[in-house]
Amino acid sequence: MTQYLSRRAATITPYVAGEQPAGSDIIKLNTNENPYPPSPKALCVLQAFAGERLRLYPRPDGGSLRSAAAKVYGLSEDHIFCGNGSDEVLGLAFQAFFDGDVAFPDITYSFYPVWAELYGISYKLVPLNADFTIPVDDMRGNGVVFANPNAPTGIALGRSDIERILQNNSDHVVIVDEAYASFGAGTVAPLIPQYPNLLIVSTMSKSHALAGLRVAFAIGQPHLIEGLMRIKDSFNSYPLDMVAQETAAAALLDEPYCAAMSEKIIATRENTIKRLADIGFRVLPSSANFVFASHPQASAAALKEYLADNGIYVRHFNKPRIYDYLRITIGTDAQMDKLI
Amino acid sequence: MTQYLSRRAATITPYVAGEQPAGSDIIKLNTNENPYPPSPKALCVLQAFAGERLRLYPRPDGGSLRSAAAKVYGLSEDHIFCGNGSDEVLGLAFQAFFDGDVAFPDITYSFYPVWAELYGISYKLVPLNADFTIPVDDMRGNGVVFANPNAPTGIALGRSDIERILQNNSDHVVIVDEAYASFGAGTVAPLIPQYPNLLIVSTMSKSHALAGLRVAFAIGQPHLIEGLMRIKDSFNSYPLDMVAQETAAAALLDEPYCAAMSEKIIATRENTIKRLADIGFRVLPSSANFVFASHPQASAAALKEYLADNGIYVRHFNKPRIYDYLRITIGTDAQMDKLI
Repeated sequence: MTQYLSRRAATITPYVAGEQPAGSDIIKLNTNENPYPPSPKALCVLQAFAGERLRLYPRPDGGSLRSAAAKVYGLSEDHIFCGNGSDEVLGLAFQAFFDGDVAFPDITYSFYPVWAELYGISYKLVPLNADFTIPVDDMRGNGVVFANPNAPTGIALGRSDIERILQNNSDHVVIVDEAYASFGAGTVAPLIPQYPNLLIVSTMSKSHALAGLRVAFAIGQPHLIEGLMRIKDSFNSYPLDMVAQETAAAALLDEPYCAAMSEKIIATRENTIKRLADIGFRVLPSSANFVFASHPQASAAALKEYLADNGIYVRHFNKPRIYDYLRITIGTDAQMDKLI
Repeated sequence: MTQYLSRRAATITPYVAGEQPAGSDIIKLNTNENPYPPSPKALCVLQAFAGERLRLYPRPDGGSLRSAAAKVYGLSEDHIFCGNGSDEVLGLAFQAFFDGDVAFPDITYSFYPVWAELYGISYKLVPLNADFTIPVDDMRGNGVVFANPNAPTGIALGRSDIERILQNNSDHVVIVDEAYASFGAGTVAPLIPQYPNLLIVSTMSKSHALAGLRVAFAIGQPHLIEGLMRIKDSFNSYPLDMVAQETAAAALLDEPYCAAMSEKIIATRENTIKRLADIGFRVLPSSANFVFASHPQASAAALKEYLADNGIYVRHFNKPRIYDYLRITIGTDAQMDKLI
């Protein structure tokens, strides 16, 4: 490490994303990408984009994407904050709303502790129950964040449990990370008018097959959106380029396409869970576009290597409690046949 | 302000970007955009982009853009860091290299103090000389940042002065923000092999007419690039979408086009300076795509309003020392005719 690093840069432990192996004949089930292409309507907008316009700055608030999200969620635009992928939105939200003692599960998206460390925000880990469900009444802190469905478990909380967490933490912001909500759990956006402390973060990477375009948003009451804007405008005023704004807006408005793709993925998931169980895997109940599975006779780390040697990439976390599990993204039916 | 804000969010003063007025008949000379379209080669790449690929994550390091920048600057790829506009790159660099007591001019890009505040980094303002040049030997701190040419003055330091600043601060990172370097000042990238503390930040917004695409990079020795990567991977692993990476790479490699557009802008600038002087303006010597001008008889604030009423937008900073000045972006010759 170089002598020139700041103290914060020298002490943090960065997040490690899933590998991005190249090659056309591999089956990539390690980063929860959607196996289907984005909405054809979105691809038309991309194709028709007049590149000369790029000489001007984009709309700093997301422009047509912000309107599209407002329409889809049935809220006014001042309830929507657009950002460069949900990692950016979550990173800004940590800075906007948390001072310390923020609570999140011990097993969840492993970027949460990284943001906390980077911004000097202390946190407490809430241990998941033995069955990997979230212990609802233990989720208390000066700020709370969790994914619903949770990752990498895939297990979702019901709306009444989420309301309990919101009520138990009414003086602090509760972030519900809905990266995988379109695969069965659904959004809690209808709760927004009732809960001034609810901030939902939603990404288009998975549900809308746009991981390559880096688009996400936060949804909450306008006072929370203004808080996010304060941080954004103190970091990077224009996080979303024009092409991304307009292509993503078209994808978001094509709700029937997104719903149909999600249905296909859910059907493949249920089938995959059954087939994995048939060959002896323990598979957690999943509301996501991945399953979390372990086998009593085979080491997960060895299985991961074996699959990679055969051109199939899945994710293994070298961490306590989940060392025996593999997280497997749901691909096409043909890809899952090969996996099994 | 909402009760839910963190202490940092409640106390910061966000950056205020130039207005982005809409309308086709306005002349926008307030945010230093390029009046010419991006490289036709870049627009071809954009047009030909196969949108189906967007379902996958992009290359986290910038991919083909990183290679293109390495080629253009004659360095290996490990000298290049790609980001979502130079604001993001600078914001990450502040976190990576500065702990406090960072020095920058009192009159410069007004985002520098905003990042310092957001990340809790103390700073000292180095007063520019009376002629608005940078006092080279006063630029000392635990980290230094300045724009070359400086903004909003447009005045550039020569290479030997920059070397003096690098030598005077050899234990700390010196960031040279080259947002406007292609309009005459040139880059100090050839100094990189000699100075382990030199980090250059370059944006494609102005020189390559790609403000709408949000692409920038940092250039420095590999140990500094690794430092930036540590912060990026603790905030947002994938800041640049695929379309931006590939379109920007093509624009960067089309060096003759960029040089020709810059030549045109320089010619228009020199002509504009002469014409403004003819009608009584004091105009600072500019190496940028804007000029900084004041008039002994007319208030800059009133001039700005008058121009806006006539559909011409320029920028005025309500700040000590520069209250009497307007920053005017160089547009096309026809636009400058109208301005005069």
